[in-house]
Amino acid sequence: MYFHSDPRIDDVVVERDFTLGDIPGILWTPASVSASASPILLGNQGGLDRMRARLAARARAAVESGFACATLELPGSGVREPLDAVDRARADLHRALAAGEPLDGIVDRLIPPLVDAAVPEFQALLDALYELPGIDGPAGTSGGITAIAVRLARVDPRIVCAVLFAGSLLPAATFDDARELTIPLHVLLQWDDEGNDRQAALDLFDAFGSAEKTLNANMGGHAGVPEHAGAAASAFFERHLR
Amino acid sequence: MYFHSDPRIDDVVVERDFTLGDIPGILWTPASVSASASPILLGNQGGLDRMRARLAARARAAVESGFACATLELPGSGVREPLDAVDRARADLHRALAAGEPLDGIVDRLIPPLVDAAVPEFQALLDALYELPGIDGPAGTSGGITAIAVRLARVDPRIVCAVLFAGSLLPAATFDDARELTIPLHVLLQWDDEGNDRQAALDLFDAFGSAEKTLNANMGGHAGVPEHAGAAASAFFERHLR
Repeated sequence: MYFHSDPRIDDVVVERDFTLGDIPGILWTPASVSASASPILLGNQGGLDRMRARLAARARAAVESGFACATLELPGSGVREPLDAVDRARADLHRALAAGEPLDGIVDRLIPPLVDAAVPEFQALLDALYELPGIDGPAGTSGGITAIAVRLARVDPRIVCAVLFAGSLLPAATFDDARELTIPLHVLLQWDDEGNDRQAALDLFDAFGSAEKTLNANMGGHAGVPEHAGAAASAFFERHLR
Repeated sequence: MYFHSDPRIDDVVVERDFTLGDIPGILWTPASVSASASPILLGNQGGLDRMRARLAARARAAVESGFACATLELPGSGVREPLDAVDRARADLHRALAAGEPLDGIVDRLIPPLVDAAVPEFQALLDALYELPGIDGPAGTSGGITAIAVRLARVDPRIVCAVLFAGSLLPAATFDDARELTIPLHVLLQWDDEGNDRQAALDLFDAFGSAEKTLNANMGGHAGVPEHAGAAASAFFERHLR
């Protein structure tokens, strides 16, 4: 983990850009440290520069609760080498959705390769985070592409709780992963999300194997998650990462 | 409002039994008062004596946030004069549910008469509460029989927000009421509620006209609402009754 620029610091958060191998990432830690901070892996949709402001706002809420947050650029996104097959699948998906055509196997060409590539990288990020001073304790994961987060939560026992978006357009493998999950889950759903099939999202919530899972559904579209839903997610992490 | 017994007092809550006309009720107010308290009407399922411990626990959480809570015995319940037609409908409902038979018009014989009788009583309770010293400000309603709470929230403009249980077995009139609601709503759903049809509950949530509504769904049966769901409901009241 190589920190290649000066940190941005205010009263609450220290934000540092880093690279892990060739992969760009961002780390947010508390500006004043009294105890070690549990790490939360922040998921993203690809394109860290474009998403930085929104990620920083999510990270700030967690850092205010004493946690450390980190994220990595996704495979094929931002400045990383393109994944041509994934890009073709994404273009096909947008075309099919716009035309109202059946999606057939498009989701299976788009999502599983991303999951397979991204999950080991986020696990390597967790390895690197635990080597930093001041980061220790059980880990959480928050948001991003649901199929990646669900697989990550399934395969890495260091992750003890997860805040997830109830997405649709999921491959069958994600439902298999979901049924195997046992950690506490806090699942966000935007009731009128224009890019989300509500019933598929409810089916995913139903599939999660966890005995403790909460669905927090709010009005509005994809980018309209209300502030109080963020506060509820923070309360969830405080219950499970302390 | 006639207080006919000594209050029960601890460090946090003063609990007082009263009658409003002939109707028994319970009032919970903060033990130490610094500002006037907004009233929250606590719904119940009928039978105050049987439900006192659970109601008191819900009231305590609200009183800790500086609110006052009150409830009334439902028409036909507890020590009140029985409502024979409603009792027959309730018996028919239990028989039909146990036998897996269609419910036909049973719900319409059970719920609307209760709604019509209970709503004016809870409005009279609100009138009486505002005459007490130390109670002022916008009102909320919390839980109880959903059809009653939804009608109450629709017809009384003093009620500015509501915590509701997403019930099923609702008459069509409740969906009409739901569509007319515009106040912020926090809706609880027990995902595996043995007495609740999940899809009907989701349909009710979808029907509410309010621009701000949150569905908070948790695992477990009817009586298994987790503690953190109570905390989320308290946070909702703090956002809207301050």
